[in-house]
Amino acid sequence: MARERIYLYDTTLRDGQQTPGIDFSVEDKKAIVELLEELGVDYVEGGYPGANPTDTSFFQQRRTNKAKFAAFGMTKRAGVSASNDPGLASLLQATSDAICFVAKSWDYHVRLALGCTNEENLESITTSVAAARNAGREALVDCEHFFDGYKANPDYALACAKAAFDAGARWVILCDTNGGTQPSEIAEIVKSVSKVVPGENLGIHAHNDTEQAVAVSLAAIDAGVRQVQGTLNGIGERCGNANLVSLIATLSLKPYWSERFEIGVTREALKSLTRISRAFDDILNRAPSEQAPYTGTSAFATKAGIHASALLKEPQTYEHVPPETVGNRRRVMVSDQGGKSNFISELERRGIHVAKNDRRLDTLIALVKEREAAGYAYEGADASFELLARSILEPQEAFFKVESFRCLVERRFDANGKLKTVSEAVVKVVVDGETYMSVAEGHGPVNALDIALRKDLGRYQAEIEDLELLDFKVRILNGGTAAITRVLIESGDATGARWRTVGVSDNIIDASFQALMDSVNYKLMKNRALGTAA
Amino acid sequence: MARERIYLYDTTLRDGQQTPGIDFSVEDKKAIVELLEELGVDYVEGGYPGANPTDTSFFQQRRTNKAKFAAFGMTKRAGVSASNDPGLASLLQATSDAICFVAKSWDYHVRLALGCTNEENLESITTSVAAARNAGREALVDCEHFFDGYKANPDYALACAKAAFDAGARWVILCDTNGGTQPSEIAEIVKSVSKVVPGENLGIHAHNDTEQAVAVSLAAIDAGVRQVQGTLNGIGERCGNANLVSLIATLSLKPYWSERFEIGVTREALKSLTRISRAFDDILNRAPSEQAPYTGTSAFATKAGIHASALLKEPQTYEHVPPETVGNRRRVMVSDQGGKSNFISELERRGIHVAKNDRRLDTLIALVKEREAAGYAYEGADASFELLARSILEPQEAFFKVESFRCLVERRFDANGKLKTVSEAVVKVVVDGETYMSVAEGHGPVNALDIALRKDLGRYQAEIEDLELLDFKVRILNGGTAAITRVLIESGDATGARWRTVGVSDNIIDASFQALMDSVNYKLMKNRALGTAA
Repeated sequence: MARERIYLYDTTLRDGQQTPGIDFSVEDKKAIVELLEELGVDYVEGGYPGANPTDTSFFQQRRTNKAKFAAFGMTKRAGVSASNDPGLASLLQATSDAICFVAKSWDYHVRLALGCTNEENLESITTSVAAARNAGREALVDCEHFFDGYKANPDYALACAKAAFDAGARWVILCDTNGGTQPSEIAEIVKSVSKVVPGENLGIHAHNDTEQAVAVSLAAIDAGVRQVQGTLNGIGERCGNANLVSLIATLSLKPYWSERFEIGVTREALKSLTRISRAFDDILNRAPSEQAPYTGTSAFATKAGIHASALLKEPQTYEHVPPETVGNRRRVMVSDQGGKSNFISELERRGIHVAKNDRRLDTLIALVKEREAAGYAYEGADASFELLARSILEPQEAFFKVESFRCLVERRFDANGKLKTVSEAVVKVVVDGETYMSVAEGHGPVNALDIALRKDLGRYQAEIEDLELLDFKVRILNGGTAAITRVLIESGDATGARWRTVGVSDNIIDASFQALMDSVNYKLMKNRALGTAA
Repeated sequence: MARERIYLYDTTLRDGQQTPGIDFSVEDKKAIVELLEELGVDYVEGGYPGANPTDTSFFQQRRTNKAKFAAFGMTKRAGVSASNDPGLASLLQATSDAICFVAKSWDYHVRLALGCTNEENLESITTSVAAARNAGREALVDCEHFFDGYKANPDYALACAKAAFDAGARWVILCDTNGGTQPSEIAEIVKSVSKVVPGENLGIHAHNDTEQAVAVSLAAIDAGVRQVQGTLNGIGERCGNANLVSLIATLSLKPYWSERFEIGVTREALKSLTRISRAFDDILNRAPSEQAPYTGTSAFATKAGIHASALLKEPQTYEHVPPETVGNRRRVMVSDQGGKSNFISELERRGIHVAKNDRRLDTLIALVKEREAAGYAYEGADASFELLARSILEPQEAFFKVESFRCLVERRFDANGKLKTVSEAVVKVVVDGETYMSVAEGHGPVNALDIALRKDLGRYQAEIEDLELLDFKVRILNGGTAAITRVLIESGDATGARWRTVGVSDNIIDASFQALMDSVNYKLMKNRALGTAA
């Protein structure tokens, strides 16, 4: 049976931009378009030309190669002709393949926000769509507040959808603007609308206010719509828009959908999904959600427990889809509940081979358990785990030894009577029998220690020049200022590699220093494994 | 029409504990139970007694007052009698009102993971349920992999559910263990099951692997189940469990559900939802998700844009539910107008009265905004907010002044060749023109500073003897060791009062010291307000 085509319309650059704290530059927008094109969405809505300088400048040229490039804006105002409406003029002047008009479809809002009559609003829809068509553009109409409007006045909501369709809009998109409509209500209303506008011309635009934007979008597809709007990683106003990343994976991989529908994302492109989702978070300068469906680092992770041993026997029966299909991977985490076979497979992934009956394996497991009981968390600190494992299974001489460190934080009034805090650290290391003593100031004691430790490591210094600390996390494991502190550090280098290390102590400086030392040691060890040691 | 009761079963302490990176101590678990009881869930699953020392110790006593306290564990093994099964014995020995058994219901997993016959597995279910009932406990059975099992072998999956019910289980919970089943499939299968086990004895346990755990749970309710399992903020293995916070709000506030169903969460308790959701993240020491449905700081926020001006005219038509119903608040990021009345009501709650046109109010609002932009978070630091407000609106002379402090952390080998870290702090304060200089050692620099600061405050010393630091949290606001650090401190005293203070700096010691100072100042101010000053 031929499958029906579902069209993906991305609004990351427009509705996604409504996310509190998110503001895209033209350069950001260009980078995001690249990700969207790689994925294979059908439409990229670039923004709202005329509304702000960034969007106006973004629409000075076509920004997509394959996807249709869409401009977003309001229908013309009531009481002016199409040629005299400056908003419509900006839209028509912008370079785009398609124009998506937002139109009121709740009579209450026609009065409240537009202050015109119901008929004038219908006329605005008709005239705006016609103007776009006359200018050679594909026309789309976002029916704002459609579902709330339908509940209040079904006839008028339907009249708006019909006006758009009759004027020649390729798509009439039903928007759940406030995000509160339940999936079953959506399905029922879509069925009514499709008696007036064919499903193959209907789209859905859902928000996540009840945590059901994905379910709402899928329920609308089941009920007949053939276009779905959403954003990368579900960003958007308030609680976000429907998450295109989850929608793409579910439509592609779940037989319930994929047996009936197809989308423009190929199986090959689907394998980039995890990378694209994380690259988008990189553009936003935020850590990707570990628990993100399909793409999170935890999406296919199992903590040792009731499932882990069976998972190792037959992973696919514990995974709803194979992680490779979306470019993600399985993780069975080392943890204090972990068994021997977990350890062996975690070690093998790191190229460390050890026999099941090797006594040193028991030593390692006992040590990991003891340390985890003391507060270490190796599941989030792969590099520290690998260092510990190699120190037991493949012991080698240490690259360097820290004889002592000292750090001082002092706050006092300076000569001008201003409060000033100074942090200074001294580190004494021994490399090849030679002692190196370094001192540094920093923003706080940990930063000062970090700078001092990496200031002079003798013959290893050149190797660690590209080491960079990317993230620093502190967790207090029990109450009070005398509590145990766990520090997690994420580091990276010029090769693009990233690794995470951990330190634990009742002294936050000590804990930080352990994690810093592990990071440097891991970098040196990695260089040797790659043959890039100095 | 009488509404049907939906029962809420919380598994934060058991399945939530499977979240990578999350490990609850007994103290954490006790604090979480308090939140759950305040909310009004029907069941609290406390953990897996016998599986690890924390859970075993947690089940040494009943931990709930109103909610049923449930222990979780496996059905007895095949081939041993109920009285000879150590797992079952641990469960029966644990203090609980109810026992939730996890049972295989996919024949494939019976072979793979249990290595027994289908009949033996049915017998294990029957015998385990009977043992729990004989011990006077309510019995529940989590049918693991129920939906995948049903697709593979519907007769066997149904036989497992029926065996549990026939043996006297109050609830048979259908688990979508791998989290990939679509809402429509769930609904269809639930309808079939309810021909064998009545819906009033069925529950749903969903995971978020396709971002539809909430929708799946609601679809199952629509199809007949009357118990729903989930976790606070949707934590859990892989992508998480169904989010009870979203489910509670949707079941309570959406007419589609609330007209037919009721839950044990009162309208009054619902107003605590936002606070409880954020308090839970505090326990996890993570930043609450800004975009969390209902409870996020952005859940009712509108950025200046096409909606903001209409929103100001008629907010309720732009909000799917009133934010106050869940204890959240509206944020319109285009104007301070909404902000001003929020401030006034926040101040009045603390007994500080100020007129709307008082210039000092504008000064305070500007200062709070400036500080929040710099990283302060007054929402979680009521005492620091009150100190700041009073310093502007009711300025008084400071109790004491810190001239300077200094702290030193030193690690070196001691005389016996053992690594030793020493932390020492010196604080110089001025009280009534008199200088007091104190020195102390501590477990880490912050502890040393805390001890030194509170060692001698002159005539105030007697007043702060009962001040106690209860919790200390560090959050790094952006990457790297040179990042901005926010420290939150919770303090308490002999009266049972608790208060929270905040400090922010690029220097963790400085940030901690600010929060410590605020704590001491708040205590002294509070004593004066209560007339208990020395």
